[in-house]
Order: sequence, then structure tokens, then C-alpha cells
Amino acid sequence: MSVRVGIIGVGVMGADHARLLASQVPGAVLQAVYDADATRARAVADEIGAQSVAADALTMIREPTIDAVLVASPDTTHQELTLACIAARKPVLCEKPLAPTAAECREVLAAETKLGRRLVQVGYMRRFDPAYVEMKTTIASNRLGAPLMFHCVHRNVAAPSWFDSRMAVSNSAVHEFDIARWMLDAELAAVQVFRPKAARDDSPGAPVFLVLETTRGHLVNIEIFIDATYGYDVRGELVCEKGTVSLAQPSRTEINLDLARGGAYPADWRPRFADAYRLQAQAWVGAIASGAIAGASAWDGYAAAAVAEAGLQSLAENRSVSISLIEKPPLYK
Amino acid sequence: MSVRVGIIGVGVMGADHARLLASQVPGAVLQAVYDADATRARAVADEIGAQSVAADALTMIREPTIDAVLVASPDTTHQELTLACIAARKPVLCEKPLAPTAAECREVLAAETKLGRRLVQVGYMRRFDPAYVEMKTTIASNRLGAPLMFHCVHRNVAAPSWFDSRMAVSNSAVHEFDIARWMLDAELAAVQVFRPKAARDDSPGAPVFLVLETTRGHLVNIEIFIDATYGYDVRGELVCEKGTVSLAQPSRTEINLDLARGGAYPADWRPRFADAYRLQAQAWVGAIASGAIAGASAWDGYAAAAVAEAGLQSLAENRSVSISLIEKPPLYK
Amino acid sequence: MSVRVGIIGVGVMGADHARLLASQVPGAVLQAVYDADATRARAVADEIGAQSVAADALTMIREPTIDAVLVASPDTTHQELTLACIAARKPVLCEKPLAPTAAECREVLAAETKLGRRLVQVGYMRRFDPAYVEMKTTIASNRLGAPLMFHCVHRNVAAPSWFDSRMAVSNSAVHEFDIARWMLDAELAAVQVFRPKAARDDSPGAPVFLVLETTRGHLVNIEIFIDATYGYDVRGELVCEKGTVSLAQPSRTEINLDLARGGAYPADWRPRFADAYRLQAQAWVGAIASGAIAGASAWDGYAAAAVAEAGLQSLAENRSVSISLIEKPPLYK
Amino acid sequence: MSVRVGIIGVGVMGADHARLLASQVPGAVLQAVYDADATRARAVADEIGAQSVAADALTMIREPTIDAVLVASPDTTHQELTLACIAARKPVLCEKPLAPTAAECREVLAAETKLGRRLVQVGYMRRFDPAYVEMKTTIASNRLGAPLMFHCVHRNVAAPSWFDSRMAVSNSAVHEFDIARWMLDAELAAVQVFRPKAARDDSPGAPVFLVLETTRGHLVNIEIFIDATYGYDVRGELVCEKGTVSLAQPSRTEINLDLARGGAYPADWRPRFADAYRLQAQAWVGAIASGAIAGASAWDGYAAAAVAEAGLQSLAENRSVSISLIEKPPLYK
Repeated sequence: MSVRVGIIGVGVMGADHARLLASQVPGAVLQAVYDADATRARAVADEIGAQSVAADALTMIREPTIDAVLVASPDTTHQELTLACIAARKPVLCEKPLAPTAAECREVLAAETKLGRRLVQVGYMRRFDPAYVEMKTTIASNRLGAPLMFHCVHRNVAAPSWFDSRMAVSNSAVHEFDIARWMLDAELAAVQVFRPKAARDDSPGAPVFLVLETTRGHLVNIEIFIDATYGYDVRGELVCEKGTVSLAQPSRTEINLDLARGGAYPADWRPRFADAYRLQAQAWVGAIASGAIAGASAWDGYAAAAVAEAGLQSLAENRSVSISLIEKPPLYK
Repeated sequence: MSVRVGIIGVGVMGADHARLLASQVPGAVLQAVYDADATRARAVADEIGAQSVAADALTMIREPTIDAVLVASPDTTHQELTLACIAARKPVLCEKPLAPTAAECREVLAAETKLGRRLVQVGYMRRFDPAYVEMKTTIASNRLGAPLMFHCVHRNVAAPSWFDSRMAVSNSAVHEFDIARWMLDAELAAVQVFRPKAARDDSPGAPVFLVLETTRGHLVNIEIFIDATYGYDVRGELVCEKGTVSLAQPSRTEINLDLARGGAYPADWRPRFADAYRLQAQAWVGAIASGAIAGASAWDGYAAAAVAEAGLQSLAENRSVSISLIEKPPLYK
Repeated sequence: MSVRVGIIGVGVMGADHARLLASQVPGAVLQAVYDADATRARAVADEIGAQSVAADALTMIREPTIDAVLVASPDTTHQELTLACIAARKPVLCEKPLAPTAAECREVLAAETKLGRRLVQVGYMRRFDPAYVEMKTTIASNRLGAPLMFHCVHRNVAAPSWFDSRMAVSNSAVHEFDIARWMLDAELAAVQVFRPKAARDDSPGAPVFLVLETTRGHLVNIEIFIDATYGYDVRGELVCEKGTVSLAQPSRTEINLDLARGGAYPADWRPRFADAYRLQAQAWVGAIASGAIAGASAWDGYAAAAVAEAGLQSLAENRSVSISLIEKPPLYK
Repeated sequence: MSVRVGIIGVGVMGADHARLLASQVPGAVLQAVYDADATRARAVADEIGAQSVAADALTMIREPTIDAVLVASPDTTHQELTLACIAARKPVLCEKPLAPTAAECREVLAAETKLGRRLVQVGYMRRFDPAYVEMKTTIASNRLGAPLMFHCVHRNVAAPSWFDSRMAVSNSAVHEFDIARWMLDAELAAVQVFRPKAARDDSPGAPVFLVLETTRGHLVNIEIFIDATYGYDVRGELVCEKGTVSLAQPSRTEINLDLARGGAYPADWRPRFADAYRLQAQAWVGAIASGAIAGASAWDGYAAAAVAEAGLQSLAENRSVSISLIEKPPLYK
């Protein structure tokens, strides 16, 4: 009943995925590893105990010894590799984004639709985060009444060198686009991006603030601040008719020292979402073993990409932009 | 050195002011009380020990035994009474708003300017709240770098019977307009009001969400939710270049009971801002004794009214509205 | 109806009391100030606006222009001055402790008993702290069932130069003795003091840990740590049959900075108990005006001293020590 | 490299262990399951997919197809089964306690010593809890100076029907005994048990309060309250020379509702220590694969039992009791 996985791309994300599959996911076999940097592929394979290093990604996808594929290579390669997996009828967990544009994502929808079944899971791992899951369970219980607004905050310590200011929308806020759609069970219908001009203009990590509406009339707002300096901090508060539910601060210990009391922030997303990545990997392998797909679908990947496109347009044109999605194919209903 | 105060209007707010002056403000003498409802005026005067009940507000203002006036009568009477105080050269603490429209506020500015000195303090008491003051002190220390964004939340338990949905902007959000101007040391330059359509349309207490920009480029956003049900809850987080500072939850005790842990919310603003009202009253009387004015000025009252007008226009027209203020008279610099 | 107060001792505590009476207590008149250091007395009188500086404490107590006396002179003088106030039939607010020994306190009980009415309030100000009051109200509501245990923590930044290790019991823990008696409505019946030997032996501010039983069977434990370094921190949790209630952390703002989140601790007790001192002063003057006594009585001062004596014996002999009080005179029932 | 595990006892605890091994521990194979109740053994084996159901525990231990044994049968059987595992040279994870008495534990030490290597891990899973681990890491960093005191609280919702009041010490507090020894790197040297008499005498779940000293002079105190009603709540605060570190409240979300704000408590230990059990299982299997032993040793099991014995004596005799351990065999150093 084991699932033999091939991993494409073993940079920071891909190597973490490989470690998770090896150490936390019974039933997963790390069959092969591919990376454009063969030395890196070899090193990760040796560290984690992968069976082999693949010489070519597309060939590896087609290998009969590979049951499923995890794509963690650069964003621009995601769509091509995902289409290759569909062609080879292999389940694939593709890191977000599914593709840089909504148009490219639609090709994935078309390929799955043509095949007649779903093989693609997109790595929007927050859907597996126990805190977001608890939030969704609370909403479902209806104790708080219907949700009206969702306030989101997403802060990083510092923008990496390769960051440009549009990526706050296209690369960071997409996590919130996906989690808001999933939490509220609605599509996003309009987006407007604001920028505090008090921030230094030349800083790619300066904050942006997004206000979105859903098809069901919820208001979603999102602060993205890549250069927030003080720590990696993701927050969410869902405001409902009779009460609110918010993500708790995830500190494990609190310290009293030097006239201050408090908890620590991690420097990046890994400690905060370690559970989410582990549970996502387990759910993916578990679903494959039982012939199903868990988590965010290709449709979800498409929808997030469409919102990101509209968001970038709003950022450029400084006005509210409507989001129009294609009709949802029956496969995704 | 005592200040003999006449109070106009002793409903809930005015009676609370009277009690504070009597029990918490050395140097204040409760000289006279006026209310359109003479029975109520008599009852409050007796309870609190006022020297007399006045038969007429305007006459009382001119009485030589009255050194200063506190106006807590209905909003529509504020401007006329304040102008009467200026005419009588009596310092006046006028409950917010200074007047329902910016135009009426400008008449107060003109009257003070003509007189050549300031007599008017507007009751934006949050400027005296120790938590907001601590926030401002933190910003001034520059530990966190320059402020970029100010997130504000203002929730009530339920809209009173006389509430209409425009009042969320004109009556509630004005507190945030004033505190944001004061905190950021900037005027508000534009406002856009959003409404989550998921809320029931006929509810005057349904939430609104405002996004504002300041003249110095800060972004301010404000959630006002009058029917929030769960409690009176005012929050603020100031996001700066290197860190953030937020108002702490003001619970005094925490309880563990019935599988839950937590603090209590008050049902209205009085426990939350008790300190602010007390310190405002002390500062007002103290400043009068030394010939000065503390707290929000007539200019501040005018600015808040101008933002509210623009906000109401945005609410009606569903677009961003610029706020244009008259040039600031030298008296207020 | 004003109360003319004479203050004896205007060091840190006494000067703070004088400022409170002048700025926060309508009805109080700062009639005279005495201090063994006449220059200091003069300076405080000038700063705060006292009517006069007294040349002698005992004479001042007897002056007909003095209605009530506040004693904030060194601990060893408290009893003599309090007895003088009783002899002069003047209400007195005596800083804690009432006297260094239980035997001396009993003389105060005898003097009041002989007079046939109570004039003495002891400055156990925590009884006026809104958080402790809210805790007591919660217990009284019986939502949590009967109280069983009271966990107390009392930490300071550093021991002052004049501190010796016995004072952790006799000078600091007395606040917890009083508040536990008041909170649980019971006398303390036995005390056992533990010392963590891991602390450096020669440190007067090293921690002690006390376990006490009340006459009604509650367990009270108290950590006193004078050299706790990180901040002034007072905590309490009352464990009841069905739940617990604890003092909340009193921070007004929270800061995110440098990979940490949290609130600040004050360096000493003054910010933490500012409300308690203010409310105590108002209650004292208010009660005098109406011929009554508020707060901790001479009996409470005696009981705390008796527990402290037993605690010191336990510290010296390293065993549990019973606390035996005299029969409570009817005046204090 | 897989480890074939036989599980003895599949009640609540044992079945949870079986699920963890099957779903969270790559490298573990659920080879056989034994339970005195054969029907229950069959049901768990079917649910989780164990290879077989064993007819007899001791026979199963000796089977060559079994590489390692997990003992989760009733407490009184632990020692005999552990000795059988040692005799069969099989690594064993024995649920706590290792044995009901210190004398029985010593026989396990003797057996391992005779064998010359360690095979026994005792299920004190808190050593794997990320919060306790973070606390220990903080201490090791020396940021807070040397630890002086450890305050522990351990509360359950209600005592199960089979509970007697001695079990608060022998069955519940043993978790704190072990974690305190591990955290402070010291043995416990003396224990004194207090009982609040205010609690109803006939209640087996009434609170007890323990004060312990370590061989290195730390003070450890522990509240155990089985009938705490409000929730499962485990707390710890380590007080050091320059600061303190405490376990944070582990809520994942916070809710505002009905004039209250806060987080939820679980009804039992499983949500609170889910990570600890998972990480313990992974560490155990991982260590076996590399020929080592992780977590609490037989010595640790013995030490906890010895403290529990002394604690029960203190409870009975109402005095401080010294704890004397045998000399530590070199195998455990």
C-alpha cells in the first residue's frame, strides 16, 4: 500500500517536503529526487535516503516506479510539470502557485477535465493548519452566526533579495486568497489594493493592504508586510454576527526578562506551519492510497491566480478590480 | 483656585460627567445643572450635590458665578451652546461632536479666532486613555521606526433604538478619526467606506469598514460594528517600520470555567474609558485653573466633522472621497 | 465637609500620598506636613501646596485644625503615632505595618477598644485594587463554587540596600497575608516557609516560598522574590471547586519587536497599584466625612503582624508554625 | 530497517499508541497486538491493520518476528512484562509507571545492569512535548540565569470512578516528578504533601499541593487537582535568577462571544499531549533502528516511583519525607 514518490526540486521547500515524506509519512517511499542542480539532488537524496537521483524531471514522471510526484521546482516550471503528471496519470502535489497566470492554470483545468478525474493537489498547506481548521469548525458549528468579515495579517521579517513589490500580492497574499475562499466557502469577486505612502517607496517589502469582497458579500481584508522586521506573524480574525474567532498566538512558552513579558516569533514560516506541511503530506499520501485527492484542487489554484492577477491590476491602476472566473467545471463541484 | 462648573444636559453622559467632577476632580465645584427635563436636572443636582438647578442654559452660561461650562446636551445643540460660551468668554468642554456638520464647526473656529484665544475643548476623551497615551509615547520613542498603518476596531453590543446606519460613520468612527489624527500627527486626506453585504441589509448596526489615508501617507483602517453582540471592544494596532504596538485587552481578571478560559467584555464604553473620562475632566479643570486648554480643540472637532462628512459621502456613492480642510488658523498651530 | 489632613513622613510613600490627596481626592485639604527632615517637608509642602509645615508630629496631631492624620513615617514610629491619633480622637490612615510586632499592635486594639470606636485604617491598599476587588466579587457570585487554594506571587526587581532576608516575610509577604485574609474571609492558622537553596545564600533578596492554612481550611501559598530582576509582578490565582479566577497581566499595550511579542513590566509597585492608592485615599476621606472607617482595620494590622511573626519563626526553625490570635474584640466584628 | 512492534494492552492508551505507530511513524510495523480482552484486541487490530493478534503476551514477547514491545496493559503488569522483554533482549516502551513500587523498579534496574545494556524506555512522554523542550532549551541558553523554583499545576476535569485520593500523588504527580527531574537535571530529595481541608473530605479528586526539594537545592511545587471541573490544564513556570519561563496556554483559536473572550480547554490530556505522544513514538522507533534508547530510562522510572512512595508517606503522616535513592548504576550515567 506504499506510495512511491518522486520529488522535483529540492531547494529549501523541496528538501523540507522530502524530509517530511521520509520521517513523518508512513506509506510514502522516497523513490527518486530530481533537481536542476544535480549535486544538490545527490546531497538531499543521500541525507534523506532516497532510492535514486533522476537525471530528468519529465522522464522521472513517466517512470513506472513512480506512483506520485511532488513539484517544488521554480514557479515558472509548475504548470508544465503538472501537465506532464496529468499526461502520465500520476497524482501530483504542486507547490503554490499552480502557475503564474490564470490562463496557464486554465490549461491544467482543461487537462484534468479531459482526463475525467482529478490528480492535482496545490500546496496551499494552510488548509491543514490545525488553527485554521479549528476556526472553520467553529464557523460550521454556527455558534457565532454567519461570517461577515475576515481580517488577515501576513508579516515576514524581510524581503529576500529576489523580491519585487508585486510579489506581495502574487506570491504572499495568495495564501490568504486561498484560505479566505476555503474558510468562507465563496469566491472572491473584487479586490482593491492600497499602499501606505509613508513607507519608503523603493522598498519591495513595503506593506500593502487589500480589501476584497466575496460572491456571498463577505468583506476580506489583508495586510501583507514583507519587511515587518519583528517576526513571522500570520493572523486571522473572522467576524461573525454574534462573535468572532481568531487565530491564537502560537507561542509555546512565555518569558519574563528585562522588564518585558512575552512570546517569541519565528524568523520564517517553517515553525509556524510545520504541522500544516506534515498534515498536508500525510493527507496527500493517504488520499492517493485510497484513490482520492485532498486539499486545494487545480480549481483552487486557478482561482487564487485569478485573484492575484486582479490584485496586480488594482495595484497598478489604483482602483477596485472585479474578478471574473470561468464557469466551474463539474469535476470540481 | 476652584473652578465653578455649569453642566448642560444630564442624561447618561452628562450625569456621569457631573459625578466625575464631584468625586474625582479637586478644584471643581458643581455650581449649576441644566437639563431640558427639569425633573431630571433636579434629581441629578440632588444626588451629586450641585449648588443649583438652572432654568435656562444660555442664561446659566452668562452667570458670573459660572467659571466654565460642560456641554452634554443633544448633538444638535452643541454648536449654539459652544458659541454662547465663547461669547461669554467661558471655557467649555463640549461633548463630541462639536457640531453635526463641518460648516457649523467652522463658525466655532471663526468665533474663537475673532476672540483671539481658545476656550473650547471637545470631548474626544480617548486622548486621555492611558493605553492610547502609552501607544503614542512608544511611537515618540522611535523604537519601532516610523508608523505606516493604523488598524482600528470599534465594536458595540447592539445599536440603540435611535441609531441609523449612517451613524456608524458620523457618530462612532469619529472617535477613531480623532485618535488617528492625534496618534499620527497628520490630517486625514481621503476615505473610502466598505460594507460587507453578507450582513442583513436592514440592520442599522451592521458593520462598515473604512480605509483612510493621511496627509503624510499613513493608511488607517477602521472596522465599526455596532451590533457586534459579544461585547464592547475597542482595539488599535499601529504598524511601524520595525515593529508594532497595540492596545492590550483591558481585562482585570481571567476566569477558567466550563472548558473555557478568558476575560470579560463590558457591555458598554463606560468601564473601558472610565480612566479616560476621569483624566479628561481633571485635565480640563486643571488647564482652566492655569489659563490654558487641554485635549482636543475646536479645530480637532472641525477636522473630525469634515472626515465624517466625506465618509458619509463615500458610503452613499461607494467610492473614495477626498477630504479638504480649510487652512488651519494660526490660533490652532 | 472638607477633611483637613496632616501628613507625617513625606519620603517616597508619604509624598505620593500627599500628591494623591491634593490631586485626586475632592474634599481633602492638605493642612500640614511633617517630616523629620524639615527641608524635605518644606519642599513637598511647596510642591503640592500644603497649608503649613509642622514642627513636631505629636503636636500636629493634636492641632484643632487637623481633622485626620496620614502616617507614612518609618515603620518603628507607626504605633506611637497611631496611639497619639487615637488619644486625640483623630482618624488615622497608617501605612503598613501597623507595628513591627503583634504585641505592639495589640496595644492599638486596646486603645481603640477603650475609646469604644474605630479610628484606625491600615494602608493595605490592595483591598482597593480593582483586580482584587473583581476577584472577590467573582467569588461572592459563587459561579466558581467555594475557594480551596490561593496561589500568590510577589516579585520585585531588586532588594534595596537596607533589605535583609527576613523582610521578605515581614515586609513584603504581609501584603499577601492581608489580601488572603480579606479574599477568603478567614484568619491564617499556620505557616511554613521554604527557601530554595539553589539561590545564593548571601542574597537578602533570594526567594522564599510560604505555605499557609486558614482557619477555614484553605491553602494559601506565596512566592516572594525580591531580586526577581525582570520586573515588578504581582499575581494571584484563586482555585475554586468549579473553576479559577486570576489577576490578569495589567499591561496597557503590547509590542512586537525583535522576534518577540509582549507587554512591559513596571520597575516598581507604583504603576501597578496607582489605582489602589487613589481609591484608598478617596475611600478614607469619604468615610471620615461620613463618620466611618474603610479598608483594613487595626485588627487586620494585628493579624498580619501575627502571621509575619509566625513566618519569621518558621524561617528560623524550618518547620510549620501555628498562628494564635487573641480573641477578636467586639469592636472589630 | 523497519521495526516490528508488538503491543500489549489496547485500552484507551494502548489503542492510541497503536494508531500513532501506524499513522505517524515511518519504519514501524504493527506486527502483533495482545489484550486480555481478545475481542478488543481483534477490533483494534482490524481497525489499525495489525498483522496479527497474539494469544499470550509473554509468548508474543519472545516471538522472533517481534523486534520491540510497547506495554500499555494495567499498571500491575508493567514490571513483569518489562522483565520479560529484557530477558528476550527486546527494546520495550513501557507506559508509566514502570512499577507500582520502587522495590519492583529496582529489579528492572538489576536486570538491565546484568544484561549490560539498556532496553527500557518509560512512557514519560512530556519529555517530548515541544513546550517543555523549549523551556529546557531556554534554561540551557542561560539567558535567565540558574533555575531556582519550578511551579507546576496539573488539573483534570473529574476523577474517574476507579480513582482514590492517593492516586493524585502516585498516578498524576509522577508526571511532574519526572519532568522536574529532567528539567532541573537533579534528583528529588524531599517531599511534603498539603491538602486544603476546605475541599470536601470524601472526594478522591480533591486537590493536593506538594512542595519538593531537589538535591541541587531547587524548590519544586505541584498542585494536583483531579476534580478541577473547568478543563484539562497543565502549567509550569520555571523561576530563574534573572527571569522566568512558563508554558504558554496551548489554545489554537480564541473566541469572542457572550461578553467573554478566550480559549477552550480540552476535556482530557490527549489534545494537549498529542504532539508529545507522536514524537515519543517516533523517537523510540528511531532509536531502536539505530541501536539506542531515547527518553526516560528505567532509572527515571525508578526515581519517579521512589518520589511517589515518599509522597504517599507524607500524605499519610502529614510531614516532610526524605527520598533516598540507591546509588545510580553506571549503566544510567
